[in-house]
Amino acid sequence: MSERTGLDAFFAPGSVAVVGATANELKGGYNIIKNMLESFAEPVYPVNPGRDEILGVKCYPSVRDLEGKVEAAIVFVPAANVPGVLEDCAAAGVKAAVLESGGFAEVGEEGKRIDAACREIAARTGLRLWGPNCTGLVNTDPFIFTPFMRAPDAHERLKPGTLGIIAQSGMLAAGFMLQYVISGYFTVSKACAIGNKIDVNEVEVLEYMASDPKTKAVVAYLESIVDGPAFLEVTRNMAGRKPLVVLKGGRYEESAKAALSHTASLAGSDDVVNGALHQAGVIRVHDFQEMMNLGKAFSLHPEPFRLSSPTGDGVAVVTVTGGGGVVLTDLLRSSGLQVPALERKTLDILQKDVFPAWMAPSNPVDIWPAIEQRGFNAFGDSIKTVLSDDRVDGIILLPFASRMLEYFPFEDIGEAVHESGKAVVSWMFGDSRYFDTLEEHMRDLGIPVYQDLHSCVLALKSYLGFAHQARNKS
Amino acid sequence: MSERTGLDAFFAPGSVAVVGATANELKGGYNIIKNMLESFAEPVYPVNPGRDEILGVKCYPSVRDLEGKVEAAIVFVPAANVPGVLEDCAAAGVKAAVLESGGFAEVGEEGKRIDAACREIAARTGLRLWGPNCTGLVNTDPFIFTPFMRAPDAHERLKPGTLGIIAQSGMLAAGFMLQYVISGYFTVSKACAIGNKIDVNEVEVLEYMASDPKTKAVVAYLESIVDGPAFLEVTRNMAGRKPLVVLKGGRYEESAKAALSHTASLAGSDDVVNGALHQAGVIRVHDFQEMMNLGKAFSLHPEPFRLSSPTGDGVAVVTVTGGGGVVLTDLLRSSGLQVPALERKTLDILQKDVFPAWMAPSNPVDIWPAIEQRGFNAFGDSIKTVLSDDRVDGIILLPFASRMLEYFPFEDIGEAVHESGKAVVSWMFGDSRYFDTLEEHMRDLGIPVYQDLHSCVLALKSYLGFAHQARNKS
Repeated sequence: MSERTGLDAFFAPGSVAVVGATANELKGGYNIIKNMLESFAEPVYPVNPGRDEILGVKCYPSVRDLEGKVEAAIVFVPAANVPGVLEDCAAAGVKAAVLESGGFAEVGEEGKRIDAACREIAARTGLRLWGPNCTGLVNTDPFIFTPFMRAPDAHERLKPGTLGIIAQSGMLAAGFMLQYVISGYFTVSKACAIGNKIDVNEVEVLEYMASDPKTKAVVAYLESIVDGPAFLEVTRNMAGRKPLVVLKGGRYEESAKAALSHTASLAGSDDVVNGALHQAGVIRVHDFQEMMNLGKAFSLHPEPFRLSSPTGDGVAVVTVTGGGGVVLTDLLRSSGLQVPALERKTLDILQKDVFPAWMAPSNPVDIWPAIEQRGFNAFGDSIKTVLSDDRVDGIILLPFASRMLEYFPFEDIGEAVHESGKAVVSWMFGDSRYFDTLEEHMRDLGIPVYQDLHSCVLALKSYLGFAHQARNKS
Repeated sequence: MSERTGLDAFFAPGSVAVVGATANELKGGYNIIKNMLESFAEPVYPVNPGRDEILGVKCYPSVRDLEGKVEAAIVFVPAANVPGVLEDCAAAGVKAAVLESGGFAEVGEEGKRIDAACREIAARTGLRLWGPNCTGLVNTDPFIFTPFMRAPDAHERLKPGTLGIIAQSGMLAAGFMLQYVISGYFTVSKACAIGNKIDVNEVEVLEYMASDPKTKAVVAYLESIVDGPAFLEVTRNMAGRKPLVVLKGGRYEESAKAALSHTASLAGSDDVVNGALHQAGVIRVHDFQEMMNLGKAFSLHPEPFRLSSPTGDGVAVVTVTGGGGVVLTDLLRSSGLQVPALERKTLDILQKDVFPAWMAPSNPVDIWPAIEQRGFNAFGDSIKTVLSDDRVDGIILLPFASRMLEYFPFEDIGEAVHESGKAVVSWMFGDSRYFDTLEEHMRDLGIPVYQDLHSCVLALKSYLGFAHQARNKS
């Protein structure tokens, strides 16, 4: 255990006390202890002075009764009781406490006093604090799930993945946990709701993820960046190694004012923030869905793709709908990407082997007439041909979801995409009864799928941008 | 029937022949006749020289055998056979033919010859032609459904609505039909795939919808605008009366080239197109999902909302998540909308009746602490109070989807929203198992719901923009 770092006691504790555990199924304290007993491989100790046992497990009146036996504590008791619990934790040798309770600095003077008391205990005893006012953290390997939302069989349902998530804001993080992590929108390595961050902050968590071999990419929603220089230092080290996507609000006077309670931010004006993030190689987004959609992209493929053109921004569109190709080309161009003319050799092969004689191939590659003539192999053949074009750094696919998908050459396409090392993203439209089928197949090939073209463009642009960083770094 | 206009023979024919009807369940000609027999209230005649009956209905060898008995024909036979069928139609007194077959001008010289032959027949005989290369049309009252995709019990599933849809591009229109119309993403009055428009074009369809009392708003995807001045004339007449959303591709050289087969477009440069559309009061969008999301907004509420502020662009945010409020404020401001300080009287009421004493209300209105203190009534009370603020022209709601929705004061909110006459849009995040519940309740209140904040902003901005047009017109 010599290589354990400061946050290991949170992410991989050898034992956990749940302070505020209860048998009342309507309470968050029930969800926490139930989730932990069900999914955590190491010893779990319920702590509650009013009970002898909870869910058939012996319950302790205080953490002090567990002296020397417990490495981490999850604390979900009224804010006023938290300082006392932390003294108990420190006295019992606990190293890390996840504070999920609300009612701290965000609720006024009394909360601020409690907040200060907690900081003082941490400073004096060396006990590390996570939160408060948050759902805590999830690690998928080794497995720990601290949130106060019930997640039955979490350890079986949350398969280990490569994406790290960091979210400030209690409510949003809870929503994200339900909507994206538990539902399987992507698989994660670690999901962290950092809350009021009175001790552990976004920089430390990001540093931990930056050096965590299981985390290959990170998405973060931040309301404030407490230590700007330290944050930028970590992000610069990640550039070209691990993709980092950040949503940081407060771009306008009105919104900055709304985030006023968090004043110690990265820098005054958003232009400065934006410039600094950009320089540090951070992919900045402006909507939660953009953030989650890039999370999906980088969870499927966190490594840099191969760029074949000198500028690394050439995109080919392979589409069953001419109109979709036109609209997508508009969006690609307005995002700053190129839709280049294909190489002569590519056009020759498409004309000879794929397209009907009357139709001249170009980019976007409109393959419906070829499919009508030759079946769905025309889709696979077009993709293979276009992938070998040196002007093409990435491809966006526009297939049609329908029962015809059973004839779709997924395996062929997957092999070609994999061999090319190039970035591929897919749109999804058509018969929504077949969306799951299309998405699952594409996911198996490492290709993210979106229902709007904007998200396809954003994902591909981010893939290519990260590949650029990697190229510049090597 | 004296007030029947030219396109009534398509939208409300007294009888229909299906040319190319077949009993082979794998063919589009089967889907058409099956759908029509099931859902069309007037006589339907299968036409196919190789069969005596189809689905238990007498089948005719030629439309000529139906002389004087049939007003419209749906034609789904190989392109080469279409001119002959049209001669038969004209001879039999058919007034309107929906051509769904592909293989016309879009497939080269032979197709262009067939195309010219069809135009000639139309010009000579007065037979009106719809398409070709399209799925035709849907009217929900009286009911007719011509597409070649199977839609069981279409007449029972597609409830009459107020939205008109126009789409060029065969494949996209087919996808839209499946994904948005049949699936119930919104309810429509008429959905039109106009295809190659060799006769009936977007202007004529738009004119028809403009004067159709059942159609209250229109969304259109257009690859080309054949007669720019006529198109702008119709749109100017619609401004402030019926919202019109247009997606028109080809903004860049590469995309305009990709749309080259459709050359007779509105004007050379996209700047000119954009200026003209804007001046004519058209809401222009750039992604299919934006178009469909505004379709959802205007299908729920096509009438202009009441603007209370002089500028008509003041938005209040009522949110359970402070972070969501910050990010949304950024998006509102960058879209050109305002997030004004609330009136003194509004703040006083919120402070006195809704908020905890330690928390000062402002815009965004962060109501979670109030909900923790007073329950979900705090949500309803906040909305009511904010709706009566004269600086607020519209509200975006950020509720949390969870099992707690059963305590949510939907009815209260609905009443307040309705009485205010103001625009309201809702985000949806949280536990996705409760998304359908939230969406259904909001839909009942006429409030559109989106999973991304960008779409919330776009919908509200479009609502307010249309209200502006209406105010300027009156």
